[in-house]
Formats: sequence, structure tokens, C-alpha cells
Amino acid sequence: MGRVSVERHRREVEALVGAALTARGSERVALADALDRVLAVDLVAPVDLPGFRSSQMDGYAVRAADVAGAASASPVVLPVVAEIPAGPGVPAVLAARTAARIMTGAVVPEGSDAVVPVEDTDAARFGGRSTSAARGTLGNQVGVLVPRAVGEFVRDVGTDVRAGDLVLPAGTLLGPQHLAAAASCGVPGLDVLAPVRVAVVSTGTEVVEPKQVAATGQVYDANLTGLSAAARRAGAVVTLAERTGDDPAELSAVLERAAAEADLVLTSGGVSQGAYEVVKDTLGEGVTFRSVAMQPGGPQGFGTVHGTPVLTFPGNPVSAQVSFVVFARDVLERAAGRPPRDEEDRRTVEVIDSPPGKRQMLRGRTGPDGSVRVVGGAGSHLVATMASADVLVEVPEGVGHLEAGEQVRVVRL
Amino acid sequence: MGRVSVERHRREVEALVGAALTARGSERVALADALDRVLAVDLVAPVDLPGFRSSQMDGYAVRAADVAGAASASPVVLPVVAEIPAGPGVPAVLAARTAARIMTGAVVPEGSDAVVPVEDTDAARFGGRSTSAARGTLGNQVGVLVPRAVGEFVRDVGTDVRAGDLVLPAGTLLGPQHLAAAASCGVPGLDVLAPVRVAVVSTGTEVVEPKQVAATGQVYDANLTGLSAAARRAGAVVTLAERTGDDPAELSAVLERAAAEADLVLTSGGVSQGAYEVVKDTLGEGVTFRSVAMQPGGPQGFGTVHGTPVLTFPGNPVSAQVSFVVFARDVLERAAGRPPRDEEDRRTVEVIDSPPGKRQMLRGRTGPDGSVRVVGGAGSHLVATMASADVLVEVPEGVGHLEAGEQVRVVRL
Repeated sequence: MGRVSVERHRREVEALVGAALTARGSERVALADALDRVLAVDLVAPVDLPGFRSSQMDGYAVRAADVAGAASASPVVLPVVAEIPAGPGVPAVLAARTAARIMTGAVVPEGSDAVVPVEDTDAARFGGRSTSAARGTLGNQVGVLVPRAVGEFVRDVGTDVRAGDLVLPAGTLLGPQHLAAAASCGVPGLDVLAPVRVAVVSTGTEVVEPKQVAATGQVYDANLTGLSAAARRAGAVVTLAERTGDDPAELSAVLERAAAEADLVLTSGGVSQGAYEVVKDTLGEGVTFRSVAMQPGGPQGFGTVHGTPVLTFPGNPVSAQVSFVVFARDVLERAAGRPPRDEEDRRTVEVIDSPPGKRQMLRGRTGPDGSVRVVGGAGSHLVATMASADVLVEVPEGVGHLEAGEQVRVVRL
Repeated sequence: MGRVSVERHRREVEALVGAALTARGSERVALADALDRVLAVDLVAPVDLPGFRSSQMDGYAVRAADVAGAASASPVVLPVVAEIPAGPGVPAVLAARTAARIMTGAVVPEGSDAVVPVEDTDAARFGGRSTSAARGTLGNQVGVLVPRAVGEFVRDVGTDVRAGDLVLPAGTLLGPQHLAAAASCGVPGLDVLAPVRVAVVSTGTEVVEPKQVAATGQVYDANLTGLSAAARRAGAVVTLAERTGDDPAELSAVLERAAAEADLVLTSGGVSQGAYEVVKDTLGEGVTFRSVAMQPGGPQGFGTVHGTPVLTFPGNPVSAQVSFVVFARDVLERAAGRPPRDEEDRRTVEVIDSPPGKRQMLRGRTGPDGSVRVVGGAGSHLVATMASADVLVEVPEGVGHLEAGEQVRVVRL
């Protein structure tokens, strides 16, 4: 059990877990359920959009040639022979030297090749609203004050997309604009990747559920809550979340169900150097236990249980959360279609000392000026204190001392 | 109906909506359901953490004074008189000149004031694992190779938090580290703000559900899908999502239910200058309709319906989405405890021309080098094209022309 670097452990974990997550299937969901899911296959437009010539404005459908000489001083006066609201139905062909009152989104009649907005006519003084026998309404006349070129204010067929065009590539993390695009194509549902299913198993006889009263020697379990929330934040669903004692038979039974119900199993506790290390004792074959040059979170294991990838994190709650962020989060977020996180460097406001040979992952809080200060100490039991942190502060393996004002890499929580 | 600035409309909308959302109540949820919710009241630690003196390492509980002279060359040899696993129970008092084998997290016995890690003893060669009658196990001896000061590797009571300390301030957007902290304090549930409830009503006789077959003159509705998804992305829950035609009585009935079931009502369509503007015709009193100097998304309305704030967006799907981002998103995200978005400026890769006097909100896509290009044109019907955008590109009111390479403000979608 030699000590390996953070990079090597991460690389090996990501290779193992990434391969398993890539192989998962897809499912069809309604648009209303597709937000934040990842599109599994390209969405190609089944229809042209717009599907018919439509008016871009409230105004008058005309023949452009008829109004070529229009001006404020000498309006072209046309009879209003039709009124075309938005909605289904095919209007009659527009005859030369006539106009049809038309609403935004309505079908532009055959024969018409331009729309004159209402504000470019002498009907504008009525605000375009229906009044009996008013200028510009059906059966009356309208004066066109501005010439319009062929095609003006007409949305032509297929100018948004053509049937067969790619609308959404596979891998798209579906946001409002993507779902609106699918809806506009008449697509009621999408094939999305099955969510990554994560099982969380928290071990330890000393660990009790937060709702029980803790006796001396017992601690409230923060890992089931913390790791489940972290997995969900990374886009996964948690299909099993159970707490076990230090009995290998009990843990074995839970792990068998966990492996069956999840794409990735996370455990906490039972992996260090003590006499009672239930995870180590239970997950002998198929899992590599090692010491990673990181603090907190040194004792790590990775492998498979009943064919499902498993990561075994240490039981101290700060160690478990740091382990998740460093080793599991990126691969889960990638599988969930999330964009990679930007690397961030910040100025420290204080001197930081760090043990040599290990990557120290301190908890930090960024200030309004963008600098970062360490909250709490290095202790992996400072879980309540960690609540005031918004970043992990990374002190590299080779660095034992940082002056105030030096740059450090931070990882957002 | 004068034209008002984007800033003024936004300010007035946010004042109206913000006040209504601030007044909403709270509810108690289990930790497992509290992710991404907003804490309604301060969480104060009900107990000390740690609640008992516990060992920070696998090793040996000793009296520091007994091992003060320890060295590799001259170990202090002590009998191992007890073995203390993690878990409930109070160990016997440790007598002077004895050691107790102790696991990480176990109760440090009275009488002991330091823990010697196993690697600082001659039991280290056994890896600390149980072997019969081995060095360092119960009933045998252990040689301590390194002196340890009083308190070393002992986690003292209350060093994480003291009972009564503030753990999580009201207003915290609950993430994994906050929920883990609450769990570690033995708190099984939290009081969180009730989610903001949004109702979405999409109007227009031309608008049909994406699963129907569209006739000429009909368009698939993108707004129910797009606005619902946008509201959910902003942290709200959508309690009503309905489509209505152009019948004021039908719309009135839907709005009455929407107002009863939501904290904010969003409508699309029926607000411009045409003859049939169902939202304008229905929501006469209590709603101000106006033209905002923005393109797309000029025709806007805001006010209350049956006492609930309502925002009326135009019906073109691009206009509706832009309206949501510009006028509704920030106030909803703030109510959901989200941090404010950073303002971003990007270089354009092309010349942009814009009509004077209006703020143009173009759809843009950021490239790998951070520059932005406009996708599609200005048309508010280009909803499928909008799917390839990741930002809105803001061309200010006073700017009619931008050269390639100039800086523009962008708003993330």
C-alpha cells in the first residue's frame, strides 16, 4: 500500500468511473421533465420553421409593387378587403391594389409579398384597435405612408430552421432555450441520458442518525447527508442511502443492493489503519486500498463491487466531502453534461503552513475583494466549521509555506 | 402608453415582485430534501462538537508525561491495558504508566491527555491490524518512539462548535457542506423558505401544443415549455402551466386559478398593438401596459391579478425568453438565495448594427477564446436558432454600430 499522488489516483478513478457512466442508457422524457438532462441523440428538425409565411408585425398585407410610390404627403390608399387574425386557416388570395389587415403571426395571403406595419399607415391614429367603421378596418380604406420592399415584415418558410437541420446536438445540457426550440419544432419529448445513479453507504458503529440522541462515543452521521447532497448537486440521483455498523455481513448485504441499484457506489469510513476497518475487511478483492498524498482524505480505495464501481472515502466528514470534490465530482458532472469548471487562483490573506509531501486541501472563504482566508484548521472533524467555507484551498505537495498575498489555487464547493 | 427604459421597467417590476416574494412563508423539510433550498432562520448548534474528547488517530492513548522521554533509540514501553474502538460507551480511567489502544474517533479515556499515532510506536510494523498476541495489542506491550505534548491528537470538546454558536445564517443557499454541518449537529430537518411558486399562461389561438399536428396558421407553443423551464432554473416551482386561446372569459378563469396558486404569474402573448390582444383586453385594471425600449421584447405589462403580481410578456418565443431573462430572472434568483450573477464583457467577432433608441438583446455564442458572435438575426421568431446561443448580447440604447473587436456586455442564458 504505497502512497500515490492525487493526480494518479484521480486519473485512475476517473478512468474506472468514466467508462461505467459512458455506457449507461437513455430514456424518453416529456419536455416538462427534460430540464437539466443531457440529450442522448441529435435532435433534427422534423418540420420547417416557420411552417408558413407569416406576418412579423400588426399591419397590412399588400403587394409591394402597389405601394412603391407611397409617401406621407401622398399616401397610397387601398381598400381593406380582408382581416386576417393569427390562427389556423388559409386566407383568400390577395388581389392587386387591395390590402388585408393582418396580425403578427398570421398567415400572409397568396398574392401579398410585403407587410406594412400599422404605424406606417394612416390607421395608426386609432392605435390599430377595433373601432366601428374606422380607417383601416375591414370594408374601409387604409392609406399607406411608406413604401415596403418585397419580403419586408414577412417571415418566410424555413428561415428559422429547415426540416432536417440539426437543432440540438447530442450531449446538450438541456436549458430553457433548448426545450423551447424542441417545443417550437413540435417535438413533445426527448431522448435523454439516464441519470447517473449513486448509492451512498455510511459505515461505523460510532455513527448515528441525526435524529437519535448521541451517547458519549457516538457522533451524528454527516456523510450520508453530505455525500448524497454532493452527488445530487453533481447531477446524479441517489438511489440508495444507508448507514451500517461495523459488521462485514451487514455491509456486504447493503453493498450487494447498492451495486445492483447504482452506477457508482460511495462508501465512507472503514478504510484507514485501525483494527476495525469494515470497508477494507469486506471489500477485499476488486478494490485497491491506498494512501493518497492528500490531507485530509489520505486513505482511499477504488475498484468494483459486484461489477459496479466503488469509491471508498474516509469517514471523517470533512475528509469525505473533500474526497468527493477531488475524486468524484468532475467525473459525475461531466457525465451530467455540465461544462468543466474554470480553474481559479486567489490571493491568501494570511500565512499558510502545510506538511511537506502532501497536497493540503484547506477550507477557505473568499472575501468581497476576491482574496481567500482559511476557515477552521486542518482538522478533518471540523465539519460544522466547514459550513462557512465556499472553496477548498489547494496547497501543492511541494509547498510547505505560503506568505500572505501569495496566489493559491482554489476549488469551488 | 409611453416608451420607458429597460432600467425603469426592470426597477418597477423588481419592486413589485420582490416585495411579494419577500413576504412568503417557510416550511420544515428533512435534510435529504433541503438541498438548494434557502434557510429561513439561523441554525444555532444545539450541542458541542465534538461532544466528547475523541482520538484524532489510530494509536495509543497515554499520559503525555509518561512518554516525555520517548525516542526511537530508547522507546518508552507501556502495557496495553485496554482497547477502545470507536462507538458508544465510556472507557475506564487510564492509569499512569499504561496505554490504551485507541481507534480514530473513539473516546479518549479519563486520565489520558495525548494520543500517540500507531506509526510513532513499535506496533507500526504490524500495520495496526489485529494479529494474535502481537506487539501493541491488548495484554501485550507497546513501545512509544516519539514524545507527544498534552492535547496532541486529541480532539477536545467543542473545538468545532460550541452549543449556541451560529452554524448557518438565515438566507444560506443550502449546499452539501451546509447540510453535512446540520447533520453533524444532530439536526434532522431545517426551516427553509417556501419555494417561489410561478404560474405560466401561454395565450393565442394560433398556438398549439407540441404534440398536436399544426395546421397552416398554427405554431407550436414554445412559451409554456420555455418559461416554465426558465422559472425552474431560477429556483421556482411551477404550480400551473396552461395554454389558452384568445377568449377573455377563458383567460380570466385561468388567471383566477393562477393567481390563487402562485406568487408570480407570467403570461405570454396578447400585449401588442393588434386588434385581438387577449391579455390586454382581460387584464385591464391593475396592470400597466407599456412599450419598453428593448428589442425583442418591447411590449410589456406588469401589475397584479387578484392580488398576485403578474408580468405579461410578448408572445414571440424569443421575445418571451429575453423578457424573462431581463425582467424576471434576477428577482427570482435572489428570492431563491442565489448569488448575483457577475457582469461579463466580451469581444464581438463581427460588426453589429442596431436600431437607435432601443436596447438590442441579440442572441450570441461565446467561442473558446471568449469572443462572442451573434447567432441568427434580430428576428424574434428565431426560436430554434436561439438553441445555439449561450448568451444574450446587449447593444445599449445609444449605440447604433459596433466594430468587430469591440467590447459588449453579455448576459448568460
